Amino acid sequence: MPETIALTSRIRLARNYEDIPFPPRMGEGMAQKVLDRTMQSLNGASGLGAAHMVRMAELSQSAREELVEQHRISPELSRKDDGALVELMQGSVYVMVNEEDHLRIQAILPGLSLGEALDLANRTDDALEKGGYAFDDRYGYLTACPTNAGTGMRASVMLHLPALTLLSQIGPIIRTVSRIGLTVRGIYGEGSQANGNMYQLSNQVTLGRNESEIVHALDEAALQVMQREREARASMLDRNALGTEDRLLRSYGILCNARRMTLREFMQRISDLRLAMDLGFVEVDPKTLDDLMLEAQPAAILRREGKPLSDEEQNAKRADLVRAALEAVG
Amino acid sequence: MPETIALTSRIRLARNYEDIPFPPRMGEGMAQKVLDRTMQSLNGASGLGAAHMVRMAELSQSAREELVEQHRISPELSRKDDGALVELMQGSVYVMVNEEDHLRIQAILPGLSLGEALDLANRTDDALEKGGYAFDDRYGYLTACPTNAGTGMRASVMLHLPALTLLSQIGPIIRTVSRIGLTVRGIYGEGSQANGNMYQLSNQVTLGRNESEIVHALDEAALQVMQREREARASMLDRNALGTEDRLLRSYGILCNARRMTLREFMQRISDLRLAMDLGFVEVDPKTLDDLMLEAQPAAILRREGKPLSDEEQNAKRADLVRAALEAVG
Repeated sequence: MPETIALTSRIRLARNYEDIPFPPRMGEGMAQKVLDRTMQSLNGASGLGAAHMVRMAELSQSAREELVEQHRISPELSRKDDGALVELMQGSVYVMVNEEDHLRIQAILPGLSLGEALDLANRTDDALEKGGYAFDDRYGYLTACPTNAGTGMRASVMLHLPALTLLSQIGPIIRTVSRIGLTVRGIYGEGSQANGNMYQLSNQVTLGRNESEIVHALDEAALQVMQREREARASMLDRNALGTEDRLLRSYGILCNARRMTLREFMQRISDLRLAMDLGFVEVDPKTLDDLMLEAQPAAILRREGKPLSDEEQNAKRADLVRAALEAVG
Repeated sequence: MPETIALTSRIRLARNYEDIPFPPRMGEGMAQKVLDRTMQSLNGASGLGAAHMVRMAELSQSAREELVEQHRISPELSRKDDGALVELMQGSVYVMVNEEDHLRIQAILPGLSLGEALDLANRTDDALEKGGYAFDDRYGYLTACPTNAGTGMRASVMLHLPALTLLSQIGPIIRTVSRIGLTVRGIYGEGSQANGNMYQLSNQVTLGRNESEIVHALDEAALQVMQREREARASMLDRNALGTEDRLLRSYGILCNARRMTLREFMQRISDLRLAMDLGFVEVDPKTLDDLMLEAQPAAILRREGKPLSDEEQNAKRADLVRAALEAVG
């Protein structure tokens, strides 16, 4: 069975053009200049595929929120009318333009594939470099916030860790990885239980180490955390296989039959279902789950409905979406 | 949709042969005499179908318990080695022999059909009367316990009252019917919540009223309680239709997917499913549910497995049975 502990790998590069003030200090018309130069470089590059650009100003508030839910843009970009998003490489690469920095190049791939993601980001970076980057021999790439200077790179892996969460072992892991300059955060509502047992493992330091050193360290750490999760799953089954199967499949039964569901419950039950799939208790196409995870988020539901919904209505629509998705596959 | 508030109607007649001491005082060989005379009458009668007889002495403890679960025999008969059960009319009539009285004729039919059940019981009674009943012009049929004398009849209707239970209206109903000589009891674990919202409405008085008066009064009361249940369901839907559907269908999802289930949870969830069927939320053959209700009881599970089971094992087998039954239909 295909195990899905590492959901996605992501590389983000922060870059700025040297002859234009950084976004926090940009004057009239400069955002457009950044965007024009960026599109010129991308359209002139070979091997990146067609570049699709959308300006934040063209998007409704809920359309922007949906992009945030999809992790394509940051909440910060969603608030900037002069910001834009460029999609390349059939959705593997997204460039945020005029966020905190002129350019935030993001490469996202499924599974643990930081090296490949770095490669995609680098190819995009090479094309954009023609625009003339702000670069210092000593500090590396210069960024609006000094914590991003140096490589300007943030690498991260999104991990699904239900067994470690259940066995209360996330705390010790956070302490361990922080000693080697890495950090672990819950996603979708940091710190809350609404994160569906998903955690982002990423580097904290961007200065003083080169890209491949950072990626290598993160890759190693991710492999270790994944192994810990596997051990936690084995120990969970060892202690109570039937109880585990029962608990996870009840969640599946509820997903297939509920008529209303809060986001928090949805995230928890989808986590249960993902684990049930990993353990071979039930067969569902992982893509169905990944799609559903996006479609059932609040802004995605609002966009589909095309009108404001009360919480109750939203919960009902979510349950409908879930049933439709799982019936189509089950 | 076929509504199933009244699950079964039951008529029980207590009878004794006049020339043989009543069971509490029977001497050596007399139980056999009662049984012989009974079988002779039944085999000689026309229109009752083939009579199948089984002696308690021939049955294992768990086989007896299963008959109790099926409401075919009383717990008291199950403890009497010289007792026997005779089945007639394709399972519509059961005669307990040598229970508290020589004969306990029971007719059981689905739905609210006390008149028809009384008819079946009377036809069996007519055949057995040839054995010579203990009858007193003033007190009517004589019975071991005086509370059964007179008509010797107990009539009862098994009612599924989930909405009245949820809205805490069972208490007032018990008080109301007791004023007209009727009683309401939970079945399958009296007073506990493990009764799956099923209640038995029956007459308390057997003396001083004739059979059709009793049946008529019970029928009227049952119709009224059923109407109250319908109103409670409507009010439940009125207040929160989606919440009701959600709650009931989650139970359906859990029944279809759980890997272990206690008897108590099973009874509650089957009640939810039955209500969901009545309200048109899901389609399941009512017979599937009725069969499952018997097969998932403890002694029935033990008989199928043919060996002692721990509680955990029994709960796992129960969940297996439920899934198999619902998958076969769903």
